Amino acid sequence: MAIALRERGLMLYSVILAGGSGTRFWPVSRADDPKFLHTLTGSRESLLQMTAARLSGLSSPEQTYVVTGAAHVDAVTNQLPAIPRGNILVEPVPRDSCAAIGLAVSVISARDPDSTVAIFSADHLISDHAAFVAAIRQAEKSAAGGYLMTIGVRPDRPETGFGYLKVGGVGKDATRLVSDFKEKPSHEIAQIYLESGQYLWNAGMFVFRGDVFLSELAEHKPALFNAVSLIGAEWDLPDRAVVLHDVWPHIERISVDFAVMEPAAAAGKVATVQADFGWSDIGDFNSLWESLALDDAGNLVVAESAETSLQDVKSCVVFSSSERVIAALGVDGLVIVDTSDALLICPRSRAHEVKQLVNDLRERGLSKFT
Amino acid sequence: MAIALRERGLMLYSVILAGGSGTRFWPVSRADDPKFLHTLTGSRESLLQMTAARLSGLSSPEQTYVVTGAAHVDAVTNQLPAIPRGNILVEPVPRDSCAAIGLAVSVISARDPDSTVAIFSADHLISDHAAFVAAIRQAEKSAAGGYLMTIGVRPDRPETGFGYLKVGGVGKDATRLVSDFKEKPSHEIAQIYLESGQYLWNAGMFVFRGDVFLSELAEHKPALFNAVSLIGAEWDLPDRAVVLHDVWPHIERISVDFAVMEPAAAAGKVATVQADFGWSDIGDFNSLWESLALDDAGNLVVAESAETSLQDVKSCVVFSSSERVIAALGVDGLVIVDTSDALLICPRSRAHEVKQLVNDLRERGLSKFT
Repeated sequence: MAIALRERGLMLYSVILAGGSGTRFWPVSRADDPKFLHTLTGSRESLLQMTAARLSGLSSPEQTYVVTGAAHVDAVTNQLPAIPRGNILVEPVPRDSCAAIGLAVSVISARDPDSTVAIFSADHLISDHAAFVAAIRQAEKSAAGGYLMTIGVRPDRPETGFGYLKVGGVGKDATRLVSDFKEKPSHEIAQIYLESGQYLWNAGMFVFRGDVFLSELAEHKPALFNAVSLIGAEWDLPDRAVVLHDVWPHIERISVDFAVMEPAAAAGKVATVQADFGWSDIGDFNSLWESLALDDAGNLVVAESAETSLQDVKSCVVFSSSERVIAALGVDGLVIVDTSDALLICPRSRAHEVKQLVNDLRERGLSKFT
Repeated sequence: MAIALRERGLMLYSVILAGGSGTRFWPVSRADDPKFLHTLTGSRESLLQMTAARLSGLSSPEQTYVVTGAAHVDAVTNQLPAIPRGNILVEPVPRDSCAAIGLAVSVISARDPDSTVAIFSADHLISDHAAFVAAIRQAEKSAAGGYLMTIGVRPDRPETGFGYLKVGGVGKDATRLVSDFKEKPSHEIAQIYLESGQYLWNAGMFVFRGDVFLSELAEHKPALFNAVSLIGAEWDLPDRAVVLHDVWPHIERISVDFAVMEPAAAAGKVATVQADFGWSDIGDFNSLWESLALDDAGNLVVAESAETSLQDVKSCVVFSSSERVIAALGVDGLVIVDTSDALLICPRSRAHEVKQLVNDLRERGLSKFT
């Protein structure tokens, strides 16, 4: 079976990281109902379902995994009925991306030591599916040679909301190396990155051989490696729950970029595929507006069940998950979000600050609304 | 009984006109639940109840009348339990202010031919109660001499939303005559009125002897006079319903300003009391903002049951009759109104255009929301 799939080019494992609460999409996204479970785009599918559907040319459902939190496992299972229940890996508590990826790679490697694994976020948008599949296939080829592969996106603006990859020299088989990982920059630095032509946005996707990733993890974060290896070895055995309970909560909270990718890049082991497939890490309602098709007035209206009356309304996001009428007159560049129990109004230019409102509500004992 | 009340200075009859749907206060005010039944001010009382309470120094409940529509009589009766049921006069269909006032004066005059009557709207705000009572008492004195008395408010801005009174010469007992009634002016004309010092805002309140008003009505609108006289004569007799049904629907729709006040003013029979009692004809959410106390950020927040989180929000109206959270960030000069089934967003400067949204919804078959 494994050999037959490999011959058909479907032996890549895909891991969807379905974590995080998406606070900047409040009030649609809530702590117990995060953004990846929602359709933010007007599609009938949630962001998670769109992500899974996008993998159809890369991994079979049996080769597709999801890492998610205990609170969301039922929703994830319901939304992705084709994915085997045993491929949905539940973190008892969040421990950041290095632990999540380490867990998935450990479990997959225990089941198939020859695995190549691609890592995706559950909440990105990609408009060109064919280009996406081609880029991941290209990364898979370079990963076979031992590189930790990233996906880089050519910047078209001095974006401060993303991390950056600094492109270095050329590796074996003409693979483009990554010399450095850069955190989210200031506007001035982002402008320098843009003008230099040497930097790509880090799309937060990775492709690598399971053994290569675990080897790098063992080198740079041995305690974390030992923990996830122990859990991975027990995953399909009776003691999984005991080991998870004993080990998981003590795992270091650290991103995979910091823990593995940066030191590996410094050692010339990270490379990138520069891709142009209409990628969007939709971080807030403004980036949703930037990513999706607008109406003639420049508005993004996502309101399946609600009537709207918009007069002289321009460049706005009007989003509803309720059945209430939304009537607006003479406003420009606003975000208007209506849900059954909460309403948000802010300028698009400040959509990234919505987390402040969530924090305010929590500090005032109103967490039930967040 | 009547003589005793007269001696105590409580023989003035007050009529509250509780008509109109207040479309510019949508979505709070609805066709079947108009603004005067609501508390728009954060008070525990509705505008109608505040209006009735304001008459405490002028008329006893037995001398207080309400003219309203058939759809609202139950709500009016419930909100004003002290007013005798027989003083709540129900119009089968709306026929504008001349018919409403004519009906009330006819019924009151049939019950007490020596009546002096004051006419008020159910949806005005007045901040200085003592000054209001004093002004009406002064008007009552001049009315005793035979004048149709108006209340004039000194303009402090070139307001285009009100009618104006042109002040003329001095009548008997130093009463200030009104030479002309002016409809809502253009901005340019309003500016001229303001600068001339000869014009007052028409506060839409009147005080007159019942016999004087009916005499003027008979002179200028004899058909209307005959209709309301017929109805008034039958009001407390068994045939009221029959006469109302036969006569009322055919009454001319005309305002009392056009029908009676303008021609009477031309004949030197209208005078005014210039009053300064903090009057506001709250026509829309912006005039509500102009009339009520604001918080430190210049916001008017009326949200009894709703939590709000307002960060960097200035000069806004935030009004809620729901229990949903309203969270806003970084907005200035907006009107945000939240009700159980509809939401309104517009700039304060365009609050007077809200009727457009109501019309749009009605044209699209969504009258249930209006």
